[in-house]
Amino acid sequence: MTGTPLLDDLRAALGDDGVLTDPDLLRGYQRDEADLCVAGMPAVVTRPRNTAEVVAVVQTAARYGVPVVPQGARTGLAGAANAVDGAVVLSTAAMAEILEIDPVNRIAVVQPGVVNAVLAGEVGKLGLRYPPDPGSWESSTIGGNVSTNAGGMCCVKYGVTTEYVLGLEVVLASGEVLRTGRRTAKGVAGYDLTRLFVGSEGTLGVITEITVALRPAPEESLTLVAVFPSTAAAGTAVAEISARGLTPSLLELLDQTHLRAIEAHQPMGLRTDARALLLAASDTGPRAAADLERLAEVCEAAGADEVFAATDQIEAAALLQARRMAHPAMERFAAEAFPGGNGGLIIDDVAVPRGSLAALLDGVERIAEECGVAIGVVGHAGDGNMHPNIVVDRADPASVERGRRAFDEIMRLALAMGGTCTGEHGVGLLKREWLAQEIGPVGVRVHQAIKAALDPTGLFNPGKIL
Amino acid sequence: MTGTPLLDDLRAALGDDGVLTDPDLLRGYQRDEADLCVAGMPAVVTRPRNTAEVVAVVQTAARYGVPVVPQGARTGLAGAANAVDGAVVLSTAAMAEILEIDPVNRIAVVQPGVVNAVLAGEVGKLGLRYPPDPGSWESSTIGGNVSTNAGGMCCVKYGVTTEYVLGLEVVLASGEVLRTGRRTAKGVAGYDLTRLFVGSEGTLGVITEITVALRPAPEESLTLVAVFPSTAAAGTAVAEISARGLTPSLLELLDQTHLRAIEAHQPMGLRTDARALLLAASDTGPRAAADLERLAEVCEAAGADEVFAATDQIEAAALLQARRMAHPAMERFAAEAFPGGNGGLIIDDVAVPRGSLAALLDGVERIAEECGVAIGVVGHAGDGNMHPNIVVDRADPASVERGRRAFDEIMRLALAMGGTCTGEHGVGLLKREWLAQEIGPVGVRVHQAIKAALDPTGLFNPGKIL
Repeated sequence: MTGTPLLDDLRAALGDDGVLTDPDLLRGYQRDEADLCVAGMPAVVTRPRNTAEVVAVVQTAARYGVPVVPQGARTGLAGAANAVDGAVVLSTAAMAEILEIDPVNRIAVVQPGVVNAVLAGEVGKLGLRYPPDPGSWESSTIGGNVSTNAGGMCCVKYGVTTEYVLGLEVVLASGEVLRTGRRTAKGVAGYDLTRLFVGSEGTLGVITEITVALRPAPEESLTLVAVFPSTAAAGTAVAEISARGLTPSLLELLDQTHLRAIEAHQPMGLRTDARALLLAASDTGPRAAADLERLAEVCEAAGADEVFAATDQIEAAALLQARRMAHPAMERFAAEAFPGGNGGLIIDDVAVPRGSLAALLDGVERIAEECGVAIGVVGHAGDGNMHPNIVVDRADPASVERGRRAFDEIMRLALAMGGTCTGEHGVGLLKREWLAQEIGPVGVRVHQAIKAALDPTGLFNPGKIL
Repeated sequence: MTGTPLLDDLRAALGDDGVLTDPDLLRGYQRDEADLCVAGMPAVVTRPRNTAEVVAVVQTAARYGVPVVPQGARTGLAGAANAVDGAVVLSTAAMAEILEIDPVNRIAVVQPGVVNAVLAGEVGKLGLRYPPDPGSWESSTIGGNVSTNAGGMCCVKYGVTTEYVLGLEVVLASGEVLRTGRRTAKGVAGYDLTRLFVGSEGTLGVITEITVALRPAPEESLTLVAVFPSTAAAGTAVAEISARGLTPSLLELLDQTHLRAIEAHQPMGLRTDARALLLAASDTGPRAAADLERLAEVCEAAGADEVFAATDQIEAAALLQARRMAHPAMERFAAEAFPGGNGGLIIDDVAVPRGSLAALLDGVERIAEECGVAIGVVGHAGDGNMHPNIVVDRADPASVERGRRAFDEIMRLALAMGGTCTGEHGVGLLKREWLAQEIGPVGVRVHQAIKAALDPTGLFNPGKIL
């Protein structure tokens, strides 16, 4: 149990069990789920149990001039949680208490390490709902969701994480504890510091407590499947759904590559001959059937080959489960596409105005052909937020290079359409250059000025976002 | 047409008609609608017509070291738009063009001087809706609404202005033009600069273009009136509505003082014997009648003397109009309450957790008695956001002093309940000390650091918020 002065001080503050230094353990904290992003080896992983211990970690690291990399469950897809060499990783996994659920005021107060599904389950018991539902919801933490402003399938009707964050407790680089926001339904007191921290990917402070807004539990929902002869036709249906003022509670797209990957991963009877499938739902209870009819009409008019409603909640749940399986199924498909299981994915996350979705999907097909790579597309069609998943052979630099080129071309296309380089995954390491393109030199300078104002020595999560 | 070098430079950039110096005209730009706040005499009022002219005003003012006070329609209620002596007022009134309405992507792009009601009307023609509806919506501008993060009656279901702001163009203190945000439904690229500027009350930059999200037009709504024997009983009904997971599209409270003031201002047949009246609505079309029944049940259980539905849309509109008249009616009531029309109002804007509404209303009655002032209460009950309006004799320093004491006591009470000093009006000049109390010394330092990062010389709207 010997160590450096840094480690000694951390152990003194957190006890031995709050400080990990075994290299085998440290390796588990090196990276999130983003493929092909650099990750360093941390000097130490700390697991503080409360705000005071977070303050101790931050102050100790600051004293030794060692950077702090905050981590949730490391399910992110942009490398934002990746360690840098010699850093202090600050895992919030041991801060996993739901501190309060208040049904009258429809709020919950949680520690950052609470898993999304745990919170959703607990509030569900009280007839309430915490809507944000990123793909990783069964393992990702509220702290991580807030830090990356996570999205999910609910967003088309219920918005992203930031819409549900009322207030935060944050440990600043100075070691001071900042409280932002409120517990009230409404409030405009001062600058919106809460939303400045949401999505800041651990670069401005360490979030130690979160007050979230809850909603009443949704009513019963009905689910629709529409099968299309082309991805562009599915995109056209989405634009028309939006133009007609319909508000589905779910509007997801799966392309043929994903349908086949999912069927291969776990046979579910999906129509793998379809070029694209739209999954739509309405959660308006007694009115859902009428909503579904209008959605079906639009899909048929846009050229769907087949449109059918899930016969019951079991089939609807199975369809949702198939959609949720897209990411692991595609990872497996990619791995198996190359010898030695060396296939990997570069995951894009562009969002374009809904009216441009069909053109984006056409463009992705063209880019795949031009770059000579396979690209599967899946995503939150109702938000115009697509995940073109680019399949590359990690063992073949030329394949990786082609994949990166396709990634860049898709980014360029989306920005040219008035889109954004990230709809929900965040910037992390993966999209720093594209963020700079998107926000321009003035935007970059303002980001730098805010970072410098809150974290003048660059203590937190260096190299991320900017 | 002689003047100082500052005026000469401004005239060279904007032409004579973009630069006002006539003292009679300048007086009209001294203050917003907040009573009893200090206001200085500006050196000049500028009315730029486009972003380039805003840049010219900002750069010119910066060159001469003269502060810039941005103004919309000056309908604010916290003094945030009040001039300071010798300042350059920058009115956005001449930038009033709707640049784009895109029904497929449900967005509009507007200049800051567009009046809220004008935008609402134009998008309404396309079957769309811009929800934020502050009391001043017929005259206030979108730029002002964004700068103060304005609320309104829609908020209980549809949220405040910030929920509808997707992107901004802002002229910074450096004269650089920053673009923030996006045109897409979803996007998490970088820090949320958009929402940092929303509600910053002109202290960080001048907003020159706004991209807002629109919603489909609401369905038909039905309206309910519940008459209570005490304000606290009405507060209890509100907490129970929330606890039961009901989501009315409107939930407003008027106390007896306001009911009488409105009847005196314009007789509408309101029950002036009621101690409090709740106005509720549901805009769920065919389901609104069932919603109304559940709301009525809750009100009756909470002790309402009488509960009735508006017989038709005309009666519903009249009730809404009565509510909208609360502010001018109360101003008139206050003016006439003292000799010489010298009565004035100190308008509070606290928001508390909905479950504490009844206790807040009880507390306000107690404070009125203890301080020896009349206080009428009106507000957005469904958000826990109340406007205790304190009636004072402006000609009597002792009366003003009693009013200020009551104002402070109400603030103290709301903060003790976990509330906020401003639910929707903003901080401006009126609540600077209370903001500091609410956010604490660390919060103040972070505000100052951000202000310094974006506006190092303190060019914009000095003395506001902080």
